Amino acid sequence: MADRFSAAAPGLRVPDWLRQRAQVTPNRLALVFEEAGWTFAELDRGVDAAVEVLRGRGVEAGERIGLLAANGPGFVHAVHALMRIGAVLVPINTRLTPSEIEWQVQDAELAQVLGDDDVGQLAERRQASKVFERQFNLDAWHSIVYTSGTTGRPKGAILTYANHWWSAIGSVLNLGLLPDDRWLACLPLFHVGGLSILLRSVICGFTAVVHLRFDAREVNRAIDEQGVSMVSVVSAMLDRMLAERGGRPYPSTLRCILLGGGPAPLPLLERAVQAGAPVVQTYGLTETASQVVTLAPEHALTKLGSAGKPLMGSQIRIDDDGEIHVVGPTVSPGYLHGPPRDGWLRTGDLGYLDGEGYLYVLDRCEDLIISGGENIYPAEVEATLIAHPSVREAGVIGLADAEWGRRVAALVVLEPGQTATPEELIAFCRMRLAGYKVPRRIAFHESLPRNAAGKLLRRDLSIEG
Amino acid sequence: MADRFSAAAPGLRVPDWLRQRAQVTPNRLALVFEEAGWTFAELDRGVDAAVEVLRGRGVEAGERIGLLAANGPGFVHAVHALMRIGAVLVPINTRLTPSEIEWQVQDAELAQVLGDDDVGQLAERRQASKVFERQFNLDAWHSIVYTSGTTGRPKGAILTYANHWWSAIGSVLNLGLLPDDRWLACLPLFHVGGLSILLRSVICGFTAVVHLRFDAREVNRAIDEQGVSMVSVVSAMLDRMLAERGGRPYPSTLRCILLGGGPAPLPLLERAVQAGAPVVQTYGLTETASQVVTLAPEHALTKLGSAGKPLMGSQIRIDDDGEIHVVGPTVSPGYLHGPPRDGWLRTGDLGYLDGEGYLYVLDRCEDLIISGGENIYPAEVEATLIAHPSVREAGVIGLADAEWGRRVAALVVLEPGQTATPEELIAFCRMRLAGYKVPRRIAFHESLPRNAAGKLLRRDLSIEG
Repeated sequence: MADRFSAAAPGLRVPDWLRQRAQVTPNRLALVFEEAGWTFAELDRGVDAAVEVLRGRGVEAGERIGLLAANGPGFVHAVHALMRIGAVLVPINTRLTPSEIEWQVQDAELAQVLGDDDVGQLAERRQASKVFERQFNLDAWHSIVYTSGTTGRPKGAILTYANHWWSAIGSVLNLGLLPDDRWLACLPLFHVGGLSILLRSVICGFTAVVHLRFDAREVNRAIDEQGVSMVSVVSAMLDRMLAERGGRPYPSTLRCILLGGGPAPLPLLERAVQAGAPVVQTYGLTETASQVVTLAPEHALTKLGSAGKPLMGSQIRIDDDGEIHVVGPTVSPGYLHGPPRDGWLRTGDLGYLDGEGYLYVLDRCEDLIISGGENIYPAEVEATLIAHPSVREAGVIGLADAEWGRRVAALVVLEPGQTATPEELIAFCRMRLAGYKVPRRIAFHESLPRNAAGKLLRRDLSIEG
Repeated sequence: MADRFSAAAPGLRVPDWLRQRAQVTPNRLALVFEEAGWTFAELDRGVDAAVEVLRGRGVEAGERIGLLAANGPGFVHAVHALMRIGAVLVPINTRLTPSEIEWQVQDAELAQVLGDDDVGQLAERRQASKVFERQFNLDAWHSIVYTSGTTGRPKGAILTYANHWWSAIGSVLNLGLLPDDRWLACLPLFHVGGLSILLRSVICGFTAVVHLRFDAREVNRAIDEQGVSMVSVVSAMLDRMLAERGGRPYPSTLRCILLGGGPAPLPLLERAVQAGAPVVQTYGLTETASQVVTLAPEHALTKLGSAGKPLMGSQIRIDDDGEIHVVGPTVSPGYLHGPPRDGWLRTGDLGYLDGEGYLYVLDRCEDLIISGGENIYPAEVEATLIAHPSVREAGVIGLADAEWGRRVAALVVLEPGQTATPEELIAFCRMRLAGYKVPRRIAFHESLPRNAAGKLLRRDLSIEG
């Protein structure tokens, strides 16, 4: 498998996506960041200039190049320039510790790591002295994206050009493609949920609006004033967007808030519906190059809480243990240093299909709490706690219990200025959940550990005593 | 190559397009014909019933099955049922003579031919006794489509599932995909321009509105009253649509009149612009599974007369003789009984690229008239003649000439009730064309020979004496 990054791999070759897009729709806006904008033609020329800079620094085809940079035009130029050089992109989570970064640099055998200073220069030069040509081999490695790692050591998921291509196509065939679409990337671009927006933008010809970081007010402003029609978020972001907005309706130009990053609490979805926010739930993984199961927009209300059906080309099944398996053209061919994958991907997520085949994602397999022989999904208990008006965030874990195997415990972050006692919250849960699901212990915290994508890190939760 | 129709070919396998579409958007309208409609779920069930009928008649995977039927729901059910069985579709032009049909039946080694009576039954049963499952192998043969044959004997172009898939995707990435799109098929479904609408419909999830035959009034009515947003036509059809309409503006729901089938006369395009008709020119071939070069909608006016740029994934080049070559994932792997194609397809069409890379199609290579060493493109002369208010149709050919090699002659059909003399038309041309392009002879006819796609058959033109 190791030689498959090479341009000599047997796959179908297609023209450079950005170059072709710049030829077909040169004057359409490709990228917006703060007050600056780039048309596809400008981005194409800027990427040639970035190629020149990177080649001057010795970046070569086939090398793996780390990208450790904040969201911004430099990141975008680096992504496309590495593709045009034929190097393999390895985006690195900027929130990692130096030793974690050092481990990934070694694990991925990186030739270089580009930091903020490096990529900042890439977006400044808008003209190259020559035009660089490359065809993309769809079977070649495009990137190695480390799993966000809610448990265990991160693994480098290999993603091919074909994985990203099919992901973009599956998204378009489900969500449609309007002439004025603008997709806001307020997720980190080093995660597949952010990165995939950049690739969809050049494949599909819509504008990527990139924010340095998530800021609920800025997101709402971009929707109101900049014609953002699509935005990818996780639950915690949606929650803050709705809170910041305070009931003010969203404009009709906003057609999709794509909600991923794990099971969404039903009360949050109901609040979104009341606010007229066009939420479309999705289920995706690093290993599937982002979304793989997404609700069709027309079922957003009738199938509230479901992640939907597989995107065109993909299939899912649930095994006897309730684990979700995925197969299709977006599935990674394997992990770095791992065996090649052929066939179904075990996702590590628990879920079920309803009578009409809609997927409901329950929780991570390893977070399942088995208490007295009953299955308890932490996400369900957390969603119940969050429905309490005083609760802002909740994390649920299983504590060792001599009698039942495990017993349920919860860590809770209260809304600013609100109070609640453990007994009050336990009583609240008892009204809404079967007895065995009700937390036996509740502890209050200032905040809960989350990874850069906003996912709760349950492995880092603990309750003393 | 002969074994590549088999499901054992090495290509990527994806779920049955119609089945997956029926699972994702079951209640969306898939097909409209006259007063009847089918949702994707209904069409899916109906196709299972059609599979049952066809299997009862002995149709088996891997067989080549002729389809000799008029546009209608029976044709649509047959297309999808053959895919679900794994048989190879061979659509036959209904305007062929019995001996021409017999030749194709032999050439394609058809196991059966389904006629109007056969397929009429297929659309009647709306429920099967079982559900038929099939995965599509993208490298397998989907269909053998005989070239419409403006010259010579028709050739069976092999089209794979991948060819059709990439064609649909290329179309969507250029033209976009709106939630309420409805694409009108008034071209014969046995030609690739009509067939491709049916496949795009299930891949992309829009409604295919099928007309029995082209009728300008019915097309305009479907646009006004049935929400048709896209329609594929050739020049002669557009001409009649505009004439029938008499200047009444098209509704904003009509977003694309996709104009193919050969170079379009500039006066026709100008009339369309004046009428507010959103014409988008395209260049396509049977061998590329329909459109391969299409103008982006935003350049419809600034690049009037151009066929545009290649669809995503495809590339074009012009050789030293001015012939257009095409390469990409929609290009047929070869002709039946021919050698496998690997690389660039020679289209047999003449064209050029302007300074910005936009394609202008001039004419068929074999129709080029060389007179006194100068190249004359019949399409240019025909377009000039058609610009005369008395001329409805024109066909231009080269007659043998001892001195110049060839000399230009024209056959003209006058508008009903109009008169004109050859001298008058020659003078009209002399004002607008270089001297060597001006017809030396003009003859008047009642009609000109066209094939089923409305393309002028210049090989059948002749002038006595």
